[in-house]
Amino acid sequence: MKQIPDEVIRRLPLYLRTLDALYDEGETRISSGQLCRRLHLKASQLRQDLSWFGDYSQQAFTYDIDALRHELGRILGTHEEFSAILVGPGKIGTALLEHFDFIVDGYSVLGVFDKAPGLVGQEVAGVPVYDIETLGDFVREHKIDIAIMTVPRFAAQDVADTLIPAGIRAIWNFTNQDLRIGDADVVVENIHFSDSLLALNYYLAKKN
Amino acid sequence: MKQIPDEVIRRLPLYLRTLDALYDEGETRISSGQLCRRLHLKASQLRQDLSWFGDYSQQAFTYDIDALRHELGRILGTHEEFSAILVGPGKIGTALLEHFDFIVDGYSVLGVFDKAPGLVGQEVAGVPVYDIETLGDFVREHKIDIAIMTVPRFAAQDVADTLIPAGIRAIWNFTNQDLRIGDADVVVENIHFSDSLLALNYYLAKKN
Repeated sequence: MKQIPDEVIRRLPLYLRTLDALYDEGETRISSGQLCRRLHLKASQLRQDLSWFGDYSQQAFTYDIDALRHELGRILGTHEEFSAILVGPGKIGTALLEHFDFIVDGYSVLGVFDKAPGLVGQEVAGVPVYDIETLGDFVREHKIDIAIMTVPRFAAQDVADTLIPAGIRAIWNFTNQDLRIGDADVVVENIHFSDSLLALNYYLAKKN
Repeated sequence: MKQIPDEVIRRLPLYLRTLDALYDEGETRISSGQLCRRLHLKASQLRQDLSWFGDYSQQAFTYDIDALRHELGRILGTHEEFSAILVGPGKIGTALLEHFDFIVDGYSVLGVFDKAPGLVGQEVAGVPVYDIETLGDFVREHKIDIAIMTVPRFAAQDVADTLIPAGIRAIWNFTNQDLRIGDADVVVENIHFSDSLLALNYYLAKKN
């Protein structure tokens, strides 16, 4: 399979969301021109991005909305089933758990990990909380795919150093800390709040 | 001033964080090769990115860490002062407020807006909560720069439609909803959790 550039992958969720919205509005077909206007994209960009996945290269094209959104979903793996855990059930972690089925379907969150004795044995958003000391064993035993990391920044690397030898396959990292993963075969997806705010800051300062 | 590509702007916070960490470790100078290894970047990429801002184009170069981090901070506008409000103090909003001074220095958060009568008049993370009905007037009166939007998805566009005519200059959008801003001169910076998770999902599914 061709190696699709990361910047193309990052635009696909927007395309998928837009097609889902059109589908929910009862639309069945959309011209490439209309879709581009809706996406605020140049026609050439959309054609180029979609050309990675099939023969969508004609200049004027009418898309079958349902077919294209299923194709994008297939590419993004939205029908795969993955197991997940969450480490650090603070406010952001709890908010993610509460809204999780809203975000994506095929995830089972099997456990939440914390070190606070008062929380261990309780549930957060319906998911049992386990002692962080048992994190590595749990990941190994249940062959967990994804760890959602919402621990404080200073604890981030320690948690990663437990997860990686236990065989975790992906880390969704909210800690604002860059993780060192060595040469482990682990997908790390960062949500760096501070980087996002600095980008906003740049564009705002430039307007001054 | 030259128009710096957005993908370069998005890498600068990582450079700045890395230089700050080196500075905190007591380092004063670093060779371009060492810095690239630390950043997991090609030397050509770093040279090219920094060439937007000054004469850092030599193949082998030793950076003055403190000078370069100040220069990057200046470019990103980290010393500017901005006023902010937060709309929708749920778990994510509250977490952001609690950790805000950790993220960036020059922001004053002047108000939080919600529609729950029980919350109006209280404080969240030390910031007073006002009735959402007064949002537009508050933004106008206090010339607010930035609105942090952490309302539910379905309410997002309504809030934007109040903020924009009131003169808001930037929106930091956590609602997972793409905002229509027409031709308003507003910086919109999105943190789309679902897009990030779909990208992770793609890379994980590809490993299967």
